[in-house]
Amino acid sequence: MKAYRQLDREKLLELKKELTQQFDEVKAKGLSLDMSRGKPGKDQLDLSMPMLDLVNAGSDMKCENGMDCRNYGVLDGIPEAKRLLSSMIDTDSEHVIVFGNSSLNIMFDTVSRCMLKGVLGSTPWCKLDKVKFLCPSPGYDRHFKVTEFFGIEMITVPMLPDGPDMDVVEELVSKDEAIKGIWCVPKYSNPQGYTYSDETVRRFANLKPAAKDFRIFWDNAYCVHHLYEEDQDSLLDIITECEKAGNPDLVLEFASTSKVSFPGAGVSVLAASKANLEEVKKYITTQTIGHDKINQLRHVRFFKDVEGIEEHMMKHAALIRPKFEAVLNTLDRELSGLDIGQWTKPKGGYFISFDSMEGCAKAIVAKTKEAGVVMTGAGATFPYGKDPKDSNIRIAPTLPSAQELALAAEIFVLSVKLVSVEKLLGEI
Amino acid sequence: MKAYRQLDREKLLELKKELTQQFDEVKAKGLSLDMSRGKPGKDQLDLSMPMLDLVNAGSDMKCENGMDCRNYGVLDGIPEAKRLLSSMIDTDSEHVIVFGNSSLNIMFDTVSRCMLKGVLGSTPWCKLDKVKFLCPSPGYDRHFKVTEFFGIEMITVPMLPDGPDMDVVEELVSKDEAIKGIWCVPKYSNPQGYTYSDETVRRFANLKPAAKDFRIFWDNAYCVHHLYEEDQDSLLDIITECEKAGNPDLVLEFASTSKVSFPGAGVSVLAASKANLEEVKKYITTQTIGHDKINQLRHVRFFKDVEGIEEHMMKHAALIRPKFEAVLNTLDRELSGLDIGQWTKPKGGYFISFDSMEGCAKAIVAKTKEAGVVMTGAGATFPYGKDPKDSNIRIAPTLPSAQELALAAEIFVLSVKLVSVEKLLGEI
Repeated sequence: MKAYRQLDREKLLELKKELTQQFDEVKAKGLSLDMSRGKPGKDQLDLSMPMLDLVNAGSDMKCENGMDCRNYGVLDGIPEAKRLLSSMIDTDSEHVIVFGNSSLNIMFDTVSRCMLKGVLGSTPWCKLDKVKFLCPSPGYDRHFKVTEFFGIEMITVPMLPDGPDMDVVEELVSKDEAIKGIWCVPKYSNPQGYTYSDETVRRFANLKPAAKDFRIFWDNAYCVHHLYEEDQDSLLDIITECEKAGNPDLVLEFASTSKVSFPGAGVSVLAASKANLEEVKKYITTQTIGHDKINQLRHVRFFKDVEGIEEHMMKHAALIRPKFEAVLNTLDRELSGLDIGQWTKPKGGYFISFDSMEGCAKAIVAKTKEAGVVMTGAGATFPYGKDPKDSNIRIAPTLPSAQELALAAEIFVLSVKLVSVEKLLGEI
Repeated sequence: MKAYRQLDREKLLELKKELTQQFDEVKAKGLSLDMSRGKPGKDQLDLSMPMLDLVNAGSDMKCENGMDCRNYGVLDGIPEAKRLLSSMIDTDSEHVIVFGNSSLNIMFDTVSRCMLKGVLGSTPWCKLDKVKFLCPSPGYDRHFKVTEFFGIEMITVPMLPDGPDMDVVEELVSKDEAIKGIWCVPKYSNPQGYTYSDETVRRFANLKPAAKDFRIFWDNAYCVHHLYEEDQDSLLDIITECEKAGNPDLVLEFASTSKVSFPGAGVSVLAASKANLEEVKKYITTQTIGHDKINQLRHVRFFKDVEGIEEHMMKHAALIRPKFEAVLNTLDRELSGLDIGQWTKPKGGYFISFDSMEGCAKAIVAKTKEAGVVMTGAGATFPYGKDPKDSNIRIAPTLPSAQELALAAEIFVLSVKLVSVEKLLGEI
């Protein structure tokens, strides 16, 4: 195929007419499909259904230390759940607290706590004139919403295939005391599917922030979310690296089983140094009497250990890999050589990241919506929902059925082509 | 029996010797019993076990609007859970949001939100020089811990059998703009088991606080927790009363099924006006993707409707009523006429409130501990853990077995007697 920008005006107009006709045809099929979020498909949810039978009316409700999981008590999680979830993120029980169904909730509450109470004795952030966070972008929109909600200024840092641009990160955090944190999705990042290299992780662990109360918010959301059995990314354990670097308190790590068991009914975990955990416990001991231990028991009895989780994740992979491949094949087939977009080919996670020609992303997303496919809003992957190049689009292929997805991918590439032609024609 | 204070020194010394001997005998039994918290007994937890079978590997996982409860989504609760929990507190679905497993967590987060974001546009409380809460006391220690955690000054308000002293409440809130809230347990209050009269509820609904951002924190924790089938307290719906009074936004109501189903794995609810709920939704939409809907489904399928809850609560009552009666009988039998203590006789809730002679509560609790019975720390029922009279003790009779409880009650009355004698002898 010839790159679109090499076509003359006449050819472009001809192409537009042709594409419009094709678009109208798919639009007429009246599809209604939500591809806006990284939601598992029904078949993935079915994988965890046996879990629901493992804690039943006849079950022993005691955890391994003899405590009745139905009653009040236990702030940091039952021992076997701490073991299971810590091993999922390559650390150990003493570094974790098990929480409720949402790691986003832990992150939000952590920022909230820093705002109101500071960090290990520092001035509460709400008392400071200015608090800033670094936001490697494209990134996870809900991270950015949290910092925006608390009035924290967000600074975009470029994402590279081996992680955030560490030259930029090191420079900024070492000079500006107002920078208190950075959002990271270190493995199979949202939305690009990039995994931080060992060097990136070590540079993180060795940061020398001007702010003593600076923390790395390490959202290891896709820690076990591989697409392939063999070809898997691996990530260094940041907790160990921070200890080695003499910076044990620098990082707060978050994860959950939301996309392992059930998105609404999983268990989540915080991992950190002893000093950080002690501070968190002071907070949660006032906030709650404890999290849902019956659900912790359910998870432990189903997965047993990290091998159980890994095995289970391969069943997920078998279901979603074809969806990723279907989208990638369509992109390859339809867009290669046209020079109107680039996309990532992740080995795990939940997303494919697509970069259109500059100034086209919003129009493309509007176009797919016209044909019944709702995608994540363009711009959402950047702080304040503003993509400076209006170029990044997050593709979430897991929820639709294979059949719907094939059609959705057609609609997407058609929208990309059409909008790109309009852009080249100067119409948008 | 003759009142202790009418005994002369010789008689008191004789009594002390006798009581000490009795105390040493029970102490020798080596009891180890925790009566410090309002925890249900194992037999109560067993009542809800069938619930665990109602959502199983073969279940339809859709709620009534067709949504798959296993996946992400739904911020305010599935429709049938909203209906169930709103009817439990005598309001309707449109006034509620269903949360996770802990109403304390909702209360904590609500105060946290007011601190950081203010109330319907008011100045965030953290930006104010002084924020104060009224604390009807004796009250719930965890309420006081929340306000203390956020550095909110607590002002004790006397509790009367029909609720907080409303003359004091009205006077204070109408004059002091720094007073931003009041903690209430309006039905079968913690620890006295008092229920607010209709007049008290109406006076609450008609408050004219100097602070526009004043809120009543209405913790309806024991809304359906009757001890008797016939002789039940009833409470006016504060939401309706506030609407009638033209103060719809004045109240935030909290409840949960923690002591209905499972303390660690129940569901909780917030009830409020539309404006308040909209504000809360803005917060939680950033904080989480949603609460555990599978657990909501479990609760709805088990209880079906409020009648189901009421029926279930009568099973609880049958188990714990004898425990309350055992304690009350021992108190009646052993302490009546001695003029060394007074106690409440609640018709519901989880506690009996005991008032010793002034200056004796700490010593009594220390004494029971000596004999192996851990009670709620004396003072805990007052702000900052300081009971000005050192007199109030919270008795939580639900957790121990009937047999243990009989012995614990003996230890308690013996401790009361012994400490009272020591007090009268001027030894403490």
